[in-house]
Amino acid sequence: MIFLLSLATKYLTLYFYSIKHCMEDITRPLLPNINYPADLKQYKEQDLEQICQELRQYIIDVVSVNGGHFGASLGVVELTVALHYALNTPYDKLVWDVGHQAYGHKILTGRKSVFHTNRIMNGISGFPKISESEYDTFGVGHSSTSISAALGMAVASHYKGETDRQHVAVIGDGAMTAGLAFEGLNHAGIENSNLLVILNDNCMSIDPNVGALKEYLTSITTSKSYNRFRDDISNVLIKLSELGPNAHKFVKKIEKSIKGTLLKQSNLFEALNFRYFGPVDGHDVQRLAQVISDLKDIPGPKLLHCVTVKGKGFALAEKDQTKWHAPGLFDKITGEIKKPVSDKPQPPKYQDVFGHTIVELAEANKKIVGITPAMPSGSSMNIMMKAMPTRAFDVGIAEQHAVTFSAGLATQGLVPFCNIYSSFMQRAYDQVIHDVAIQNLNVVFCLDRAGFAGSDGATHHGAYDLAYMRCIPNMTVAAPMNEEELRNLMYTAQQENMGPFSIRYPRGNGVLTDWKRPFKALEIGKGRKICDGEDVAILTIGHVGNFAVEACKELNSEGIHPAHYDMRFVKPLDEALLHDVFKRYRNVITVEDGCLQGGMGSAVLEFMADHNYNSQVVRLGIPDEFIDHGEQPELWALCGFDTNAIITAVKKTAVRRTTATIAS
Amino acid sequence: MIFLLSLATKYLTLYFYSIKHCMEDITRPLLPNINYPADLKQYKEQDLEQICQELRQYIIDVVSVNGGHFGASLGVVELTVALHYALNTPYDKLVWDVGHQAYGHKILTGRKSVFHTNRIMNGISGFPKISESEYDTFGVGHSSTSISAALGMAVASHYKGETDRQHVAVIGDGAMTAGLAFEGLNHAGIENSNLLVILNDNCMSIDPNVGALKEYLTSITTSKSYNRFRDDISNVLIKLSELGPNAHKFVKKIEKSIKGTLLKQSNLFEALNFRYFGPVDGHDVQRLAQVISDLKDIPGPKLLHCVTVKGKGFALAEKDQTKWHAPGLFDKITGEIKKPVSDKPQPPKYQDVFGHTIVELAEANKKIVGITPAMPSGSSMNIMMKAMPTRAFDVGIAEQHAVTFSAGLATQGLVPFCNIYSSFMQRAYDQVIHDVAIQNLNVVFCLDRAGFAGSDGATHHGAYDLAYMRCIPNMTVAAPMNEEELRNLMYTAQQENMGPFSIRYPRGNGVLTDWKRPFKALEIGKGRKICDGEDVAILTIGHVGNFAVEACKELNSEGIHPAHYDMRFVKPLDEALLHDVFKRYRNVITVEDGCLQGGMGSAVLEFMADHNYNSQVVRLGIPDEFIDHGEQPELWALCGFDTNAIITAVKKTAVRRTTATIAS
Repeated sequence: MIFLLSLATKYLTLYFYSIKHCMEDITRPLLPNINYPADLKQYKEQDLEQICQELRQYIIDVVSVNGGHFGASLGVVELTVALHYALNTPYDKLVWDVGHQAYGHKILTGRKSVFHTNRIMNGISGFPKISESEYDTFGVGHSSTSISAALGMAVASHYKGETDRQHVAVIGDGAMTAGLAFEGLNHAGIENSNLLVILNDNCMSIDPNVGALKEYLTSITTSKSYNRFRDDISNVLIKLSELGPNAHKFVKKIEKSIKGTLLKQSNLFEALNFRYFGPVDGHDVQRLAQVISDLKDIPGPKLLHCVTVKGKGFALAEKDQTKWHAPGLFDKITGEIKKPVSDKPQPPKYQDVFGHTIVELAEANKKIVGITPAMPSGSSMNIMMKAMPTRAFDVGIAEQHAVTFSAGLATQGLVPFCNIYSSFMQRAYDQVIHDVAIQNLNVVFCLDRAGFAGSDGATHHGAYDLAYMRCIPNMTVAAPMNEEELRNLMYTAQQENMGPFSIRYPRGNGVLTDWKRPFKALEIGKGRKICDGEDVAILTIGHVGNFAVEACKELNSEGIHPAHYDMRFVKPLDEALLHDVFKRYRNVITVEDGCLQGGMGSAVLEFMADHNYNSQVVRLGIPDEFIDHGEQPELWALCGFDTNAIITAVKKTAVRRTTATIAS
Repeated sequence: MIFLLSLATKYLTLYFYSIKHCMEDITRPLLPNINYPADLKQYKEQDLEQICQELRQYIIDVVSVNGGHFGASLGVVELTVALHYALNTPYDKLVWDVGHQAYGHKILTGRKSVFHTNRIMNGISGFPKISESEYDTFGVGHSSTSISAALGMAVASHYKGETDRQHVAVIGDGAMTAGLAFEGLNHAGIENSNLLVILNDNCMSIDPNVGALKEYLTSITTSKSYNRFRDDISNVLIKLSELGPNAHKFVKKIEKSIKGTLLKQSNLFEALNFRYFGPVDGHDVQRLAQVISDLKDIPGPKLLHCVTVKGKGFALAEKDQTKWHAPGLFDKITGEIKKPVSDKPQPPKYQDVFGHTIVELAEANKKIVGITPAMPSGSSMNIMMKAMPTRAFDVGIAEQHAVTFSAGLATQGLVPFCNIYSSFMQRAYDQVIHDVAIQNLNVVFCLDRAGFAGSDGATHHGAYDLAYMRCIPNMTVAAPMNEEELRNLMYTAQQENMGPFSIRYPRGNGVLTDWKRPFKALEIGKGRKICDGEDVAILTIGHVGNFAVEACKELNSEGIHPAHYDMRFVKPLDEALLHDVFKRYRNVITVEDGCLQGGMGSAVLEFMADHNYNSQVVRLGIPDEFIDHGEQPELWALCGFDTNAIITAVKKTAVRRTTATIAS
């Protein structure tokens, strides 16, 4: 007996030793071995949790020292691992909506070693990008495109007879409120294509989500599990029918009704002909992998409702999700966010000038209301939302609605300030024309992020608004050179009968520390002379005027004296100013942080042609190509309209003049 | 007895006489007395049916001889009468979606006597228009704006404390599929504003509706009444619970579940926090008036599901609803549609050239697919839908989705021809930039109704596409001068690696009867010389080139010989051609049926400035204002770019040259 006990002990010891060894083996880092989904698939389902932990830590490590989006990718770590584990990417098509949730995806698909170059000039993009990897099926920066894009892929596969190919769109509940997503669902519901929409429900855009859909999703997830409920109903009905023939009769009647009408239509997504699954825990990676694998066998359009926490695994990010959407650099241990230190007081962000100014104006003018489509913090509309909660509206990711809703408000005499990023305003172009401009309504469009957005890259640069706004009749198109000008333009725009009024300004800081000056009404279509000159005239619009000021300083020190005018308005143009310029200057340089095709420079050329002037006009601005990500100054230099570029352009006209003199 | 019988007979005779008299009284026309809703309100509810009959007949009488939209307004006659009867318009705000359903509304709100000028130049607009009447609360030509606009009005009333004001949006089920409508619903669901959305469910846009939502609505209306169903469930549960304590226990459990989850979420609109009512018969005017009146007392967002028949009351229109959407002139008795008679064979519509050509191309190139957002008949995509049903997609009123879906298809190597009217493409501007152009995908955009749309007016003119397309990098921007050119551009665009390719053409007929010529690949960015000249060069783009041909003929006969070039491409420009032109001609005239701000003429000016030419350039095109409705030739003349205007412009340059010669 003792012998047996001893033997058992020995074996048990060995057994536990082997388990311990095995566990040590498991806790050895796995991520270093994973560069592609094929590597991931070498591991067992039990290993996925550890891989998730390592992937999450890797994102924290890199983003804390390099910056970038943060919360969104942390929230989908498990989903990312499960998808690449269960699917056969890149053969299967995986479309990430918005794209700032795709860091984990990038790391697992060949870009781990370059992930530290994320969003840096010449580095990898912060969003999926077709040209970067075959795993990036669709480029995305703006939200809500994934269902339509994935449906296109699914329909193409169906057409080509590739019946085994999976097509998955991963879309946040915030992105789901945009009309485009709904249009995609409505079409997908009648196409018999192999499409899986994964609804990543975290109740957040950059700011907390708003709208009836969000409340609806919350009601599904906080009530008992939807599917379990259906099972319950079935069980109850079975038991009821056992009570006797009378009960059985009624039960059949209920069952028929419920199955025929209610159950079929009992869910918003099922109403649109999707098969609905969920809600499932989006942080249970093994379960997710199984579910996704199972769903591969179910044909037609289907939706998996997956509940996640934005910022998952980094306590501070879970707690303040808006702040940690893209926090900049931070200490990954303490969570302290590193702010640039400066001795001198810094000029404010244009955004904050907007936020404080609209409150100031709205205090005096009761007609003013504020509208933002899901960008309260980004646009600083949150300042008004806090100060005047009944007069500032976050309408969700819904730019089209934001504009038409503003038009409706304006018909009743209110003055809506509708703040939309320049590149997002592309989403509401028809509403600007059809609902505001044709009716000549006094809606003030504040186009934030005009010009280069910086590290968000091509999808976010506000390059086209001067061109696409200035061709719209009735529209006033203005841009402030500094904070004071922004305030004065906002003040001017809210006066009586101003009609549609667009004010564009860039992301980031202005140039004045002493910016809160008294309001002054500006004359519509009236520019201003910054300095007189003798050789050449520089015409600028908006913030880039400051580059010209710097350029003039430097040129003056070399004895060159260009004139400089801040146009303030691209539409209407200051004709008196332009007559003066074209009469006095044979050489004119236009500078804008917008596209050269159809922009401010073109407006100046149109004026010149219409009035038979023939000066030499050189136009500086964004060339006819999509510009990738980078710091704003890098991009200004790259595209040739920063201070140095202006200096060079002025000097070139001097050379041209000299040559001309010699020749004549 | 006989006396009594005689007395009875007498009284009965009198009684029937009075009834007959009464009926005669009722059948006396009432509409002549009704010019405003206040007049309508003088009548009893029992009179409304007759008023509807007369209103319907009035629409038939006028539209049959004047043309215009037809089916939509016939379908909402009862709804129109009921709304103005039950509401206090114009104090209450009534927003008609799309607007072509608003003829009855116009007739009842002060415009009966001018209704025959509908859609005629200087006559009333075919759509609601704020500047035309205080009853027209919101101008509408494009669909799906009404919920957002009415919500804006409702929120404004709430803010201003006007708690008694009603706000009603009448939206078709076709319009409901557009993302904008969904965005409006999503926001309205969380605003506690007094908003009633009336869903005019007739299963039609211009063509039959498509999409999951349509199927869902059909399932509601074809199943037993939704509300009655809820009552049934309650009754069954009550009866069941009477079966005994065991049954009672289970019933409570079901009831709780159903009430807590299913009933609350049992309807798509209720899921979005709307109170849902209906479906109701949209042709029972008395019931409608009562329901609308009752709904005034119910606070918050609510939706009335109203089932109507498009074309109601005109048998042929009910039968072929697409054909009778806007049939042109017709015999109101026989229903014969009057076609203009001509001895000579007429050139085809550009639309039909598109429709036949895409089929021809798709037969040879298996990669080609066709996409239309709810415009199969308008764009003639229906030709492909009939010939190749699996390769042509009507995605419903969903321009954004149409473009992103096309992008998805293109990522898989297909070549989508996405056909969207120029003014509707404004709805998908971001998708063109973000989903197609940035990714340089080979999507062919066929922009129908470019230039003046004619009698649809300002909302439908395709004035801006040259400007808003040409500022997009990677985009090819082309326009054919005739049918053969359209075919060749389509052929060219479907070749390998063409990237985003936009082809614009106008509404209506081309110029060639012998148009079906063999395909020829065109060189990208290569224009063509129509004729050499000696005095001045005319540069045209697209169909207006034919005006220049006519002008040249006439000028030649007077001894003036302008050169004429068809640019074919606005982007890339034909630089060799332009160098040649600017070297040879001091005077250049550009002609386009697009806006002058940022259009083709501006592109030519940019080229001229960039290459230091300084010819005199005169630009003809659409000026910087919204142009109302009228026949296309009327509008071309009005805006100064028809044949006569070109002749005048050429002669002016001759005067200028003569003056210059004398002066020098």
